[in-house]
Amino acid sequence: MSTGFFDGLSKVTYEGADSDNPLAFRHYNPDEVVMGKRMEEHLRFAVAYWHSFAWEGGDPFGGLTFERPWHPQDSMQNAKLKADVAFEMFDLLNAPYFCWHDADIRPEGADFAENLSTLEEITDYIGEKMQSSSTKLLWGTANMFSHRRWMAGASTNPDPDVFAFAAATVKGCMDATHKLGGENYVLWGGREGYETLLNTDMGQELDHMGRFLSMVVDYKHKIGFKGQILVEPKPQEPSKHQYDFDAATCIGFLRKYGLENEVKLNLEQGHAILAGHSFEHELAVAAAEGMLGSIDMNRNDYQSGWDTDQFPNNVPEVALAYYHVLKAGGFTTGGTNFDAKLRRQSIDPEDLIAGHVGGMDVCARGLKAAAAMIEDGGLEDALKERYAGWEKPEAQAMLTSDLDSIQARVLSEGINPKPRSGRQERLENYVNRFV
Amino acid sequence: MSTGFFDGLSKVTYEGADSDNPLAFRHYNPDEVVMGKRMEEHLRFAVAYWHSFAWEGGDPFGGLTFERPWHPQDSMQNAKLKADVAFEMFDLLNAPYFCWHDADIRPEGADFAENLSTLEEITDYIGEKMQSSSTKLLWGTANMFSHRRWMAGASTNPDPDVFAFAAATVKGCMDATHKLGGENYVLWGGREGYETLLNTDMGQELDHMGRFLSMVVDYKHKIGFKGQILVEPKPQEPSKHQYDFDAATCIGFLRKYGLENEVKLNLEQGHAILAGHSFEHELAVAAAEGMLGSIDMNRNDYQSGWDTDQFPNNVPEVALAYYHVLKAGGFTTGGTNFDAKLRRQSIDPEDLIAGHVGGMDVCARGLKAAAAMIEDGGLEDALKERYAGWEKPEAQAMLTSDLDSIQARVLSEGINPKPRSGRQERLENYVNRFV
Amino acid sequence: MSTGFFDGLSKVTYEGADSDNPLAFRHYNPDEVVMGKRMEEHLRFAVAYWHSFAWEGGDPFGGLTFERPWHPQDSMQNAKLKADVAFEMFDLLNAPYFCWHDADIRPEGADFAENLSTLEEITDYIGEKMQSSSTKLLWGTANMFSHRRWMAGASTNPDPDVFAFAAATVKGCMDATHKLGGENYVLWGGREGYETLLNTDMGQELDHMGRFLSMVVDYKHKIGFKGQILVEPKPQEPSKHQYDFDAATCIGFLRKYGLENEVKLNLEQGHAILAGHSFEHELAVAAAEGMLGSIDMNRNDYQSGWDTDQFPNNVPEVALAYYHVLKAGGFTTGGTNFDAKLRRQSIDPEDLIAGHVGGMDVCARGLKAAAAMIEDGGLEDALKERYAGWEKPEAQAMLTSDLDSIQARVLSEGINPKPRSGRQERLENYVNRFV
Amino acid sequence: MSTGFFDGLSKVTYEGADSDNPLAFRHYNPDEVVMGKRMEEHLRFAVAYWHSFAWEGGDPFGGLTFERPWHPQDSMQNAKLKADVAFEMFDLLNAPYFCWHDADIRPEGADFAENLSTLEEITDYIGEKMQSSSTKLLWGTANMFSHRRWMAGASTNPDPDVFAFAAATVKGCMDATHKLGGENYVLWGGREGYETLLNTDMGQELDHMGRFLSMVVDYKHKIGFKGQILVEPKPQEPSKHQYDFDAATCIGFLRKYGLENEVKLNLEQGHAILAGHSFEHELAVAAAEGMLGSIDMNRNDYQSGWDTDQFPNNVPEVALAYYHVLKAGGFTTGGTNFDAKLRRQSIDPEDLIAGHVGGMDVCARGLKAAAAMIEDGGLEDALKERYAGWEKPEAQAMLTSDLDSIQARVLSEGINPKPRSGRQERLENYVNRFV
Ligand SMILES: [Co+2]
Ligand SMILES: [Co+2]
Ligand SMILES: [Co+2]
Ligand SMILES: [Co+2]
Ligand SMILES: [Co+2]
Ligand SMILES: [Co+2]
Ligand SMILES: [Co+2]
Ligand SMILES: [Co+2]
Repeated sequence: MSTGFFDGLSKVTYEGADSDNPLAFRHYNPDEVVMGKRMEEHLRFAVAYWHSFAWEGGDPFGGLTFERPWHPQDSMQNAKLKADVAFEMFDLLNAPYFCWHDADIRPEGADFAENLSTLEEITDYIGEKMQSSSTKLLWGTANMFSHRRWMAGASTNPDPDVFAFAAATVKGCMDATHKLGGENYVLWGGREGYETLLNTDMGQELDHMGRFLSMVVDYKHKIGFKGQILVEPKPQEPSKHQYDFDAATCIGFLRKYGLENEVKLNLEQGHAILAGHSFEHELAVAAAEGMLGSIDMNRNDYQSGWDTDQFPNNVPEVALAYYHVLKAGGFTTGGTNFDAKLRRQSIDPEDLIAGHVGGMDVCARGLKAAAAMIEDGGLEDALKERYAGWEKPEAQAMLTSDLDSIQARVLSEGINPKPRSGRQERLENYVNRFV
Repeated sequence: MSTGFFDGLSKVTYEGADSDNPLAFRHYNPDEVVMGKRMEEHLRFAVAYWHSFAWEGGDPFGGLTFERPWHPQDSMQNAKLKADVAFEMFDLLNAPYFCWHDADIRPEGADFAENLSTLEEITDYIGEKMQSSSTKLLWGTANMFSHRRWMAGASTNPDPDVFAFAAATVKGCMDATHKLGGENYVLWGGREGYETLLNTDMGQELDHMGRFLSMVVDYKHKIGFKGQILVEPKPQEPSKHQYDFDAATCIGFLRKYGLENEVKLNLEQGHAILAGHSFEHELAVAAAEGMLGSIDMNRNDYQSGWDTDQFPNNVPEVALAYYHVLKAGGFTTGGTNFDAKLRRQSIDPEDLIAGHVGGMDVCARGLKAAAAMIEDGGLEDALKERYAGWEKPEAQAMLTSDLDSIQARVLSEGINPKPRSGRQERLENYVNRFV
Repeated sequence: MSTGFFDGLSKVTYEGADSDNPLAFRHYNPDEVVMGKRMEEHLRFAVAYWHSFAWEGGDPFGGLTFERPWHPQDSMQNAKLKADVAFEMFDLLNAPYFCWHDADIRPEGADFAENLSTLEEITDYIGEKMQSSSTKLLWGTANMFSHRRWMAGASTNPDPDVFAFAAATVKGCMDATHKLGGENYVLWGGREGYETLLNTDMGQELDHMGRFLSMVVDYKHKIGFKGQILVEPKPQEPSKHQYDFDAATCIGFLRKYGLENEVKLNLEQGHAILAGHSFEHELAVAAAEGMLGSIDMNRNDYQSGWDTDQFPNNVPEVALAYYHVLKAGGFTTGGTNFDAKLRRQSIDPEDLIAGHVGGMDVCARGLKAAAAMIEDGGLEDALKERYAGWEKPEAQAMLTSDLDSIQARVLSEGINPKPRSGRQERLENYVNRFV
Repeated sequence: MSTGFFDGLSKVTYEGADSDNPLAFRHYNPDEVVMGKRMEEHLRFAVAYWHSFAWEGGDPFGGLTFERPWHPQDSMQNAKLKADVAFEMFDLLNAPYFCWHDADIRPEGADFAENLSTLEEITDYIGEKMQSSSTKLLWGTANMFSHRRWMAGASTNPDPDVFAFAAATVKGCMDATHKLGGENYVLWGGREGYETLLNTDMGQELDHMGRFLSMVVDYKHKIGFKGQILVEPKPQEPSKHQYDFDAATCIGFLRKYGLENEVKLNLEQGHAILAGHSFEHELAVAAAEGMLGSIDMNRNDYQSGWDTDQFPNNVPEVALAYYHVLKAGGFTTGGTNFDAKLRRQSIDPEDLIAGHVGGMDVCARGLKAAAAMIEDGGLEDALKERYAGWEKPEAQAMLTSDLDSIQARVLSEGINPKPRSGRQERLENYVNRFV
């Protein structure tokens, strides 16, 4: 029995590149085999409950624009209606995965006990729906930034009661994620940071955050959760500064607290941009450390200084992202989450479908282009050639040498290196053969 | 026997805040005691040879604007004239320190042997001048970014010959720094990074950079250099991405390669800005790790997306910077370097003096304001009060606890934290009492 | 009979620079005479109803943090309570002016008729309060961006019914502003712009916006409103692009539609920053065209890419702003509005007072510094000297000449200009004598 | 008789999309007809002499990397060799157009007379080469920013002698452009702006700039030059602020000085980005005013805060740019200039060819996609539908009405607009069908 929310819209199918049906897949063909694996298994798309069903279309200067049958979102009844609609959309899109924050799926209660109880109830409800659905849980997470109690942080709050509330909340969310077979558990520290250094003890806060994350890892092992723990870097917004600034900062933090073998990264294009990086940079940093876990494949607008969380639409950019994912071996527990919201003027149910269809198609094109580049090998060959000098024994020997002997050798051999072209334009042109 | 370059200008003296002499110190009184130490010993000002004497006023759209008697800078004779003028300026300013790159003080030669020989000759010459001068060497460094051989990096170059040339160069510069009694040795990796990921093996380059820095540390110990090794973060420019992006990235890098106890940071306001941070953020990050070594107290223009390297002129900003320096215990080997250049229209010798006098005065005001805040204790008291909850035994116990027991306690005790004001405006007003 | 909201807080008074009372004025002394005019008459401070009383502390990632007795803001009863508290704050601060949007002061109704009727009722109520208050209305304005009807713009909406609703709304707000003796009427086009050019006819939208503004001007004259019509530039946020991008864009727009003698600008520091300008740039652009009307003296955080609307706290920056205001002759109908909100963690009534006290004090210091620079004349003298060449007859003659004769003169006279120092550092040092 | 510079490289030909020849056109087929016109006539590609032949590979932190046979660029002999190589490249690429600054093509002389004389000599030489070449001159321009005399501006210089030198220079460049059959004359005011407002009289400088441009227009008519006068907006760099900030600012300036019918805009993607706009925004602004003249189709790196002037490589972005060009009627005198430089590591002659080939191919793909969207009409249809309400008589009547009558109608008719979806995602998906 349908909720009727998507009345008039039917299951989205693959119709091929020539289709002009705006609600068909033109490139995403789940069963098409790319580099020996089905596209669906490569891409592992996930719908984000938050943006698609909980966000109401507000922005800093305006209130809700979406009027949904599950509004107001303050009752279990509406939470269940929202879940019904969500699964209808998963079905329309044939979405392999979804993701949630606790606050997306349950109403906010008066205290922790109530939040825990409604979380259990709604995740039972969702669990039942998953029985008859092919959509699985990519990850769960705790929203520890929306309610006013979190205004000064969760694990980094100056008030230890908030730390306690956060720990209790994360335990609940990890339990629920485990119950629903989630393949990862994510932490995003939107308010783990500061508004002003004037009232902040950064060292103490970081120690608390490190300790908190260690507890999360311990608890994962205790309950036998086999999923991957992921942290999601973002430099700022809502906080002026967030401790999980970017991939390099997170990796340094993990190493400091001895968590580098337990935690990986969930990287988002929009957050890369806000941090002053390209998305492929963040992916390459994580991959170089073996910490590339999962991605949020939503873009930011280059002209907006905040997180616009838009569906991806630039194939060349997306292709470079998947190139790094594939080069790192592809996803294991991770996937392609759309942490993307409709523009707030896109108020119709049809827009929800269109956003996802467009995003999935762009990713499919990007994946295929990336795979073609991997298979052609042109970039890798150029890389090998550029660094070929380092394969020589005397070059390798130098790395275990010292400044004195190297200087002596430079003087005795008259080493005077001649610049070689970096071939950037040629390589960029090469990429354009595939995208 | 004077070069005559500064003819008409006399030694800059302290005349007090009421002076309207544009070339007098109004706030910097070297002998004034602040928090038990002379201002000169607190601030430890250094003149940067590069910007003041080697840079010719060019920018990406125009050539030199400065016409100096030591131009062209391609002979030892002119290098010596430049040194003579430099020491005349140190004397006019009573500058306690200066800093150099090898390429600032010697002409560029045809090969490494020539560069090494001219470096030895000019540092002998400079050493003699230092005998009769009170100006000491804060740090030396190697310019491994200007000559075309460095265009694809120094220690991270795809060509091992460039790595060798870099190692040889740094040995020479460390020797020279040691000879001149330098108190630190700095590395800034302006081209240790990439222009495009398409031609870059980031993991390999970082390993090479880590190995290179380890050799630097080893060599320091070998020759008995007691100074501090410093790296200077900067996110980009000239490279699109630089590996020493910001303080957190550098610290993560140092920890990865086991160098966290050997190397500290030289932080620059302009580079903080380019990385999307405030200067006090970078200082606080380094201080929290005990890695705050030295500072480049030159600002960037907030409306320019590149490194403008201007003399500081905003007292409230400078005061917050010194607040973090003082809170971290003040400088030991480090100091306040002006990695600042005149605007390219400021072509007169007088402008060189004016830039430094203004910068020194702004720093003196900032230091005094910072010291007053430290002594008043208002910020520290507010911090203590805000985090007071963490001093309770049950809060501390929680940090060695686990998610289960914390959740149990939240449920049993009904912990439901109430937000408390962060008092940001009040703290900002407090700071304004001192600046 | 007090509402009790500010219980425990008393009237803020001037105690002088040595006071350590956090809720006293240390620099703002309304009756102190600066350049022949009382400070109060120079600065003409205004409290913004929106941020101080209507905004609830939400941001894109979190809901309200402020819990106020006038919440929820959906009834006339609460609107009146809110007005009572507002006037209590005006009184505590001795604020000479306030500003409102219609949506700040009345609840949102079901249709236009209800909005008009509640606006009339609440402005009558406010008018009565003004009888016994010394606080006057600096400006009124219509909020045409928060309700979902405005999501695609007001006067630039693709739907003419929205244009009509906007026109009706502005008439109501102009009538109310006139009734309350407002000295200006402001338009800020937060959604007059676009989210994507793909669905936008920019030319048509600009024509509609021009026509709308002409109607506003016509109506002003019709009702005999003597106040100044002002538009407030802002480049983006909430819209991706806003047509009133910056001062130069607005002036170009006004000139295109023949409104350059009827409309002036309300300039905000934060919006200048977002547009890639300094605040003094925007002020200078407006002043050069005689269109500097009023200011919103609230700063943005340089590290945040959105409008943070914070109280000003940097005296050197504020001083340069008032320098341009004073140089342009000072305010006539305009004033210094604080379009500033507390940080969302500053949840106490005391914070509201602290924010304003700090802001007013910073402005007072800035004004005094600016006046001292004007009176000293150092900047103006330097300017005159730099452009002195243009006062010569042959220079003026050249401006009415042509390329041929100038080239002939260059050739015959061998004109070969010699660069002169721009003296930037010296001028910056000069400013630091006053701030 | 060839210079030999491009030895080993042969004429670039169209080989079709399946070619893997890195130096072949895969999409640019000059004779292919698109929307009834040959691609070559649509795109009107131009090579920029400056970046390709005069720039030596320097950046703010490093000197030249390119070693060219025409270095040093200080003799007429080398200027002629450079011209020979340039025309060899035009021939290899079959480039329809080129562009120059005076300083690109002649050595810098000791005074104006010498500059004028060498300009005449080299343009005679180039004119002869054009006799046997199919490459024409798209535009000429004067470099009034590189030599130190221009450090404080050209027409806006505080020194009237510099204004005179600028006028003389522009006359010379216009004469030379006219002589060579140039189709446009461009002015870019890289130093028409300021470094600090402290030493700047903006109003006076703008008046001088307006007067200067009027003289340019007068002179064009006097000599019968039929080309279009163009100004090129750029917000900053080299100057902190440039008066020709963006399209809207330039248009406002032109209107103020009565030049809006005489001057059009040369828009560059990189400059749009620096000004906080998308390229299509700048194109749409100019098109809405009928002032879209020509384009510089070189991109900036989104992560670099300066003008990186790279060859375009993102087809979806380029397609949107040409969509606006085609919608505005396509180029008349204007064209597609590559104001693009190789990366400074791309030191080989082959790189010069690769950069242009890649850029031309990307533009060809963009043009074809844009044409397909125009022909399909999907975007235009959606636009018409969205604004359809405005075609009704009552909507049009409202535009000639007034606030009173509109309010009366809103009240009497109970107008209460209902939001309609803006369909942004659907439109973005639509575009992705074509790129
Ligand atoms: Co995001
Ligand atoms: Co995300
Ligand atoms: Co710097
Ligand atoms: Co530095
Ligand atoms: Co604002
Ligand atoms: Co404002
Ligand atoms: Co450019
Ligand atoms: Co250009």
